[in-house]
Amino acid sequence: MKYKLIVAYDGSNYVGWQIQPNGISIQGLLEQSLKRLLREEIRVIGASRTDAGVHALHQVAHFETESPIEAYKICFGLNAILPRDIRVKEVLSCLDSFHAQLSALRKTYHYHLYRGHEDDPFKRFYHFHYRLPLNLALMRQAATFLEGTHDFTSFANKGSSATSFQRTIFKLHLIEEGQYLRFECTGNGFLYKMVRNLVAVLIEIGKEKMTIADIQKLLLEKERRLAPAPAPARGLFLVKVEYQ
Amino acid sequence: MKYKLIVAYDGSNYVGWQIQPNGISIQGLLEQSLKRLLREEIRVIGASRTDAGVHALHQVAHFETESPIEAYKICFGLNAILPRDIRVKEVLSCLDSFHAQLSALRKTYHYHLYRGHEDDPFKRFYHFHYRLPLNLALMRQAATFLEGTHDFTSFANKGSSATSFQRTIFKLHLIEEGQYLRFECTGNGFLYKMVRNLVAVLIEIGKEKMTIADIQKLLLEKERRLAPAPAPARGLFLVKVEYQ
Repeated sequence: MKYKLIVAYDGSNYVGWQIQPNGISIQGLLEQSLKRLLREEIRVIGASRTDAGVHALHQVAHFETESPIEAYKICFGLNAILPRDIRVKEVLSCLDSFHAQLSALRKTYHYHLYRGHEDDPFKRFYHFHYRLPLNLALMRQAATFLEGTHDFTSFANKGSSATSFQRTIFKLHLIEEGQYLRFECTGNGFLYKMVRNLVAVLIEIGKEKMTIADIQKLLLEKERRLAPAPAPARGLFLVKVEYQ
Repeated sequence: MKYKLIVAYDGSNYVGWQIQPNGISIQGLLEQSLKRLLREEIRVIGASRTDAGVHALHQVAHFETESPIEAYKICFGLNAILPRDIRVKEVLSCLDSFHAQLSALRKTYHYHLYRGHEDDPFKRFYHFHYRLPLNLALMRQAATFLEGTHDFTSFANKGSSATSFQRTIFKLHLIEEGQYLRFECTGNGFLYKMVRNLVAVLIEIGKEKMTIADIQKLLLEKERRLAPAPAPARGLFLVKVEYQ
């Protein structure tokens, strides 16, 4: 039997989605919990390998098991075992052909900037606190320019296992709500740290330290070192993964 | 010189506002930080002794010092020393007659209930997750009944240093927003765990396990043991303290 999981997590205390030797990962905890529940070695595949400190409202994963167990019992059992900062929202039985990562057609990430003058203790794990003035009109122009299909080599940190660096961004919008600025980014896939690199470049545009011509150059030169450091992980949320 | 502080904190990792032998308190950290900054023993007095796990968006405190230092430098210095989950929002020099606790005329607390079906990892420290149905119309009637001046002995946990148990609630409103229910409570002062006890009683009313006649009896009999256990600390926020 193959199952699809919808998982939400606060990434603050983890090394990221993927199993790593240096700490606790969400994938690792899910696999351990499924092993306890099903008494079987289980491999969990996620749609997106979110990084250390990155959050998910809606991560999608799949796994296969020999155990004849109903989906709602897996959901209930996992939530009883897992820590409170990882919650399984749904477990559905799915077709054998479903693959959480390879079948994904569109992924949506939100990046949260807090622009208030004062520090806010409740935002420390979930926003990037940015106090300098930003030219939003320029940022929106640049965001529109980045939409579409490009070679995003300059926006991918080393460590990416990708063979092609071409990706399509369907939507890159900036939503201003009071002291908050939210970047909403939907694409057919993202390279390693690509969303945080897009946000970092848009912030440079907003500071008027970079222009759209510079972005054009970045895309053409395919040279990561020319681009600014990625925006901090804590502002990033995986909010949706869409399939056929 | 006397100074007034406005402080916000995430109470999740603390034993509460007040210095206690068994852990780290917000008052204790503020006093240690002021000592480091001003090289003097400083006593900090807060408006409200928030409990372990209770949060504050706007706690007010005062302290006195011999050091000739400007208010904004205290603010900047404290925020450089304090952990990220405690933030000093403002420091103002104030009159000698000002007392954060004794001069307070009105305090406002909000209590946050999350009523969604699914667990949400981002709400685990800031909401009480309550899934059962609630009769809001009855709860609002009971809330209105609790407004005004009463002897709240049955709503005060042991440990209160109060000599009188009479308090006035100016406002006790229930605000429903989608899957959230927020209790907004303003009074001239609150007994130990009183807001959480009010919320717990209103939840019993919403479950139709208690009636307004039962509340009337609770108030008259002045017997804490007749009342339900307080609602969890994590849903409670001190949001305002008002003075003359």
